[in-house]
Amino acid sequence: MTDRIAVVGAGLIGRAWSIVFARAGFAVSLFDSSQEAASNALLFISARLPELHAEGLLMGSAPDAVMQRISLAPTLEAALDGAIYVQENGPERADAKTALFARMDDIAPKSTILASSTSGIPASVFTEPLRGRARCLVSHPVNPPYLVPVVELCPSPWTAADVVARTRDLMTRAGMVPATIKREVTGFVLNRLQIALVAEAFRLVADGVVSPEDCDATIKHGLGLRWAIMGPFETIDLNAPGGVEDYCARYGGLYAQVQAEQTPLDLTPELVADVHDAMRAHLPLADQPARQEWRDRRLMALLAHKATQLEK
Amino acid sequence: MTDRIAVVGAGLIGRAWSIVFARAGFAVSLFDSSQEAASNALLFISARLPELHAEGLLMGSAPDAVMQRISLAPTLEAALDGAIYVQENGPERADAKTALFARMDDIAPKSTILASSTSGIPASVFTEPLRGRARCLVSHPVNPPYLVPVVELCPSPWTAADVVARTRDLMTRAGMVPATIKREVTGFVLNRLQIALVAEAFRLVADGVVSPEDCDATIKHGLGLRWAIMGPFETIDLNAPGGVEDYCARYGGLYAQVQAEQTPLDLTPELVADVHDAMRAHLPLADQPARQEWRDRRLMALLAHKATQLEK
Repeated sequence: MTDRIAVVGAGLIGRAWSIVFARAGFAVSLFDSSQEAASNALLFISARLPELHAEGLLMGSAPDAVMQRISLAPTLEAALDGAIYVQENGPERADAKTALFARMDDIAPKSTILASSTSGIPASVFTEPLRGRARCLVSHPVNPPYLVPVVELCPSPWTAADVVARTRDLMTRAGMVPATIKREVTGFVLNRLQIALVAEAFRLVADGVVSPEDCDATIKHGLGLRWAIMGPFETIDLNAPGGVEDYCARYGGLYAQVQAEQTPLDLTPELVADVHDAMRAHLPLADQPARQEWRDRRLMALLAHKATQLEK
Repeated sequence: MTDRIAVVGAGLIGRAWSIVFARAGFAVSLFDSSQEAASNALLFISARLPELHAEGLLMGSAPDAVMQRISLAPTLEAALDGAIYVQENGPERADAKTALFARMDDIAPKSTILASSTSGIPASVFTEPLRGRARCLVSHPVNPPYLVPVVELCPSPWTAADVVARTRDLMTRAGMVPATIKREVTGFVLNRLQIALVAEAFRLVADGVVSPEDCDATIKHGLGLRWAIMGPFETIDLNAPGGVEDYCARYGGLYAQVQAEQTPLDLTPELVADVHDAMRAHLPLADQPARQEWRDRRLMALLAHKATQLEK
């Protein structure tokens, strides 16, 4: 029997999750309290599927077959009925998540996993009083998840280990790459890594070391090429003949020195305006939606390219 | 007339630079005080060119044509004769660079630019007493430069602005992407960005938040995909409807919070061993050379893929 996934909330992230689960063969029940949002989501999905198909990104299914796996649920109860897993994409506010998870915990079959897409609210904040709190966690995607495979699984202190393990399995079946965040930290892992790098980028611009454009070039024509293939640890492991230990022996001193120079970033209005204006020189804000579409087309093509490459 | 480039030092970096300049149509005089190193470099280059050609990475030239543009110079004097630009790749020690640059400054025609590939020694350290110090700078590549286009141009306080401008032009003609580092800082820009991210990765492992493997996954199946296409500033600029200013208004608080939590990294032997061992679980050290070849093949394919994509 086909396993059923409930996707709650049909905004940008909910739509994208529907594609992820449906292309992997799951039956998807999509619910949104706004009928209009739900209908728009179906229009968005049906427009997106042929593009993904053209790039070979529907896991072998035809667009029509994927579309047929997605149904709109008239109520939250109907959406959760028979679902093994719920992916929640409601408003990014603790009070809203608290209310929604309380309701879902009442409704959902006992064994159903309840996961939130939140990018910043730890599960402990909105699940503590729930009877079923052990089955709740955060499954944080990158936007859009049908183009960016990683998903951060962030359990609360009371999430059952089995729930994390089952969610990892489920995400792997869905063609995603799960990363388990073993305890709740601000920003989880992906955003912390991004913040560490972006903060240093801002500092270097503030200190008059590099222009925003040239800073971007060092990543997109430099480090980013490696990081699209290997993680940061794999990268340094290959950068010294003896692996990570050798690398740290060679460069540990440099790490200490650079970190000593990394004073806390002061995001002054002037600094932010400098970087903002540098971006505007190449991209008027009016062109941002077109540029976002360009980015997604590029990501799609990059994923299709990666799929042609052997891991070894 | 074809412009001539001198490449001094025929180790891994010198060999790679020879390919970069020769495929772009420059005449390359390659010199190494070791005859054996020089001969090995030619063997390496002639083996590499057909692979690059197969991926469309020789800028339209045939391997033979590229090879014919590279000649071994019998002496440093012969190498520098008629060269508009020297790319130095000697031992990574200040005393060695000081001696070599003094000699090159004596030999080279007045207008010749003298650049070092050093990844960590600022030009001010090895050029201060030279008559021609205004024509000296660092042109720091990523290894290997024929696969990773960015090159950091790092002038000393006395490097002439015109020398930086001419080197930018030259690198652009050579198909590279120059990034100007406006003043000397430890690690220049690319390595500082890498250190900021890798230090946070180590911290997250040390704090029991994530395994090294899952940390790598958040980059290679997440952020790295974007960063292979866009720099960090371009990325955040597209992540909020109003661009960088809007992004900073939304996430400035998160940046402050995460940074407050980023205590200085302590690279203890235990932490280093944990990460090292995690890498060994998938890659015995004996397989490292094969894995480095895999990485270079993947980089080659990725570059070839990027070349098929429109920037807009």
